Amino acid sequence: MIAAKGYAVHSQTDTLAPWDFERRDVGPHDVLIEILYSGICHSDIHQVRSEWGPAIYPMVPGHEIVGRVIEVGTHVKKVKAGDLAGIGCMVDSCKECASCTGGQEQFCDNDKTVFTYNSLELDGKTPTYGGYSNKIVCREEFVLSVSEKLPLEGVAPLLCAGITTYSPLRHWKVGKGHKVGVLGLGGLGHMAVKFAASFGAEVTMLSTSPSKEADARKLGAHNFCFTKDEAQVKKYGKYFDFIIDTVSAPHNYDMYLGMLKTDGVHICVGIPPEPIKFNGFSILGRNRTITGSMIGGIPETQEMLDYCAEHGIVSEVEVVPIDYVNEAYERVIKSDVKYRFVIDMATLK
Amino acid sequence: MIAAKGYAVHSQTDTLAPWDFERRDVGPHDVLIEILYSGICHSDIHQVRSEWGPAIYPMVPGHEIVGRVIEVGTHVKKVKAGDLAGIGCMVDSCKECASCTGGQEQFCDNDKTVFTYNSLELDGKTPTYGGYSNKIVCREEFVLSVSEKLPLEGVAPLLCAGITTYSPLRHWKVGKGHKVGVLGLGGLGHMAVKFAASFGAEVTMLSTSPSKEADARKLGAHNFCFTKDEAQVKKYGKYFDFIIDTVSAPHNYDMYLGMLKTDGVHICVGIPPEPIKFNGFSILGRNRTITGSMIGGIPETQEMLDYCAEHGIVSEVEVVPIDYVNEAYERVIKSDVKYRFVIDMATLK
Repeated sequence: MIAAKGYAVHSQTDTLAPWDFERRDVGPHDVLIEILYSGICHSDIHQVRSEWGPAIYPMVPGHEIVGRVIEVGTHVKKVKAGDLAGIGCMVDSCKECASCTGGQEQFCDNDKTVFTYNSLELDGKTPTYGGYSNKIVCREEFVLSVSEKLPLEGVAPLLCAGITTYSPLRHWKVGKGHKVGVLGLGGLGHMAVKFAASFGAEVTMLSTSPSKEADARKLGAHNFCFTKDEAQVKKYGKYFDFIIDTVSAPHNYDMYLGMLKTDGVHICVGIPPEPIKFNGFSILGRNRTITGSMIGGIPETQEMLDYCAEHGIVSEVEVVPIDYVNEAYERVIKSDVKYRFVIDMATLK
Repeated sequence: MIAAKGYAVHSQTDTLAPWDFERRDVGPHDVLIEILYSGICHSDIHQVRSEWGPAIYPMVPGHEIVGRVIEVGTHVKKVKAGDLAGIGCMVDSCKECASCTGGQEQFCDNDKTVFTYNSLELDGKTPTYGGYSNKIVCREEFVLSVSEKLPLEGVAPLLCAGITTYSPLRHWKVGKGHKVGVLGLGGLGHMAVKFAASFGAEVTMLSTSPSKEADARKLGAHNFCFTKDEAQVKKYGKYFDFIIDTVSAPHNYDMYLGMLKTDGVHICVGIPPEPIKFNGFSILGRNRTITGSMIGGIPETQEMLDYCAEHGIVSEVEVVPIDYVNEAYERVIKSDVKYRFVIDMATLK
């Protein structure tokens, strides 16, 4: 076994604190990575606090991981020692079913997706531990190649916030000639603005905070709609081909559906705690669609990382030392971050 | 003006009774049709009773109309006296906007769609009167050509129930290789079964009544799932590419979404009285989609009628005399009809 250090919680009411644990030895198909940066995703907080159902403790959160390969197993071809590498939300799956072989390992037909933390390995008993740590061992199939071109701290959040917004925009073929509304300017929202603009769409930030306008425009938005102002909402009535909805707080779906033109698509990537609810006429009225999208498969995550390297796209981040993580959580809950906290793992001693 | 007879209600608590009224004279672009059959749609009942908001009285319902052309205006080219013709849910629109010129008159961008009854003509003051009558005058653009090949009484419901199910199945390119669930076996549902099967899909009837199995199979369904039996629902978990949902009573969307495979689409054509409601995970979990579809435009309605003539598709109907209409309404509400009442207008004296 390999000695590892990390920050963990031991119960749902615990705060994160240093914890020594072990990673498995490097198997023939494994890659050992020294973690350099690890993003803080809102879903880390949900899971640490068992808000998404009973969690596995101790828990080392973190699924936006970048680092450098230290060692590879005898059969590994994808990366070699010294390469930059990334790990996102998954570290293994059955690798045999139609979903897995089709590059949608997050939807493994055998329900064997192994998530990066708060999950069990394929043996059904060994817990997985995430990126708030100094090292990680992972099957090569789930290791992503990371370019040397981009600032690494800005790459980390691409592994979750990036792919979560890239994937549905690609699936729905968003591009030139499309009008796209982005709902919510946080970790996901700011990436949605960057991608949609990069794909050639006209991007409108939809926000309840007028103070976000300047930033939204800096990130690439062409328009800003203050959604508490009825007149502005009316101006954008039946306007958008797509709305990408990154908000996980309860909100008024009927109002946003009314901003879609005929055949328009409302894409949910945030998960609100309450059921999604709207009037049937809101979708029948103009043949509108509401759809969900969950992260993205490994091949598409690699495609996204390559696209970002080619187009110079990274997440806007605030780099913090690991002993700041509990405070960072409180600020994430208050949306007080532009736009993603990333832990500098060199601060973990 | 042209003297016309029909059945009308004069208030939301009224029952339908004979009423004499007038149609406009035949203008240069108008077509005068002698109505032979008129279908009874559940939405007639909703509107008669002001259940979809304040209605216009007196009201002559009916938007599934077939008949024979008696006279045409001087500029009319589409049909001539003696031709069979149909009229569906719309009789006019602005005819100039992108939606209208793009063949989606039901979504007129100027909000000028004139519905066949319970609506106002483009002048904003003349009420429209529907198909429970002996004659109708309509702009040629909204008159459909009807083949002599099919039994006319079975054609009438195609003008609403037919196009309402045909349009989304075409939009989503449903065909060979697809697994389609049809939810509800009524006026819309039985047409959905016929079309989906005709397009080459594998069709499964989803129903809360085991008694419907034999009929569903006769109409073209390949499988039957009794949705009150958990084991059967589980068997069809993650099974369908599409579910076409014709139910307007409240129902459990999460259960049906769970029956869709990755990227599966739940198509709503019925409008439930309560909001549509489901857990966000139900769509995010497998990138599922829920969408609405409202009737269909004129060009597609013509395409559907031509397709039906070519493939021998009609609605299953129970032909009734017009003085049976109030009783028919009560039976529609109890779903006691296989599968559409059609009024034989020759019984209107």
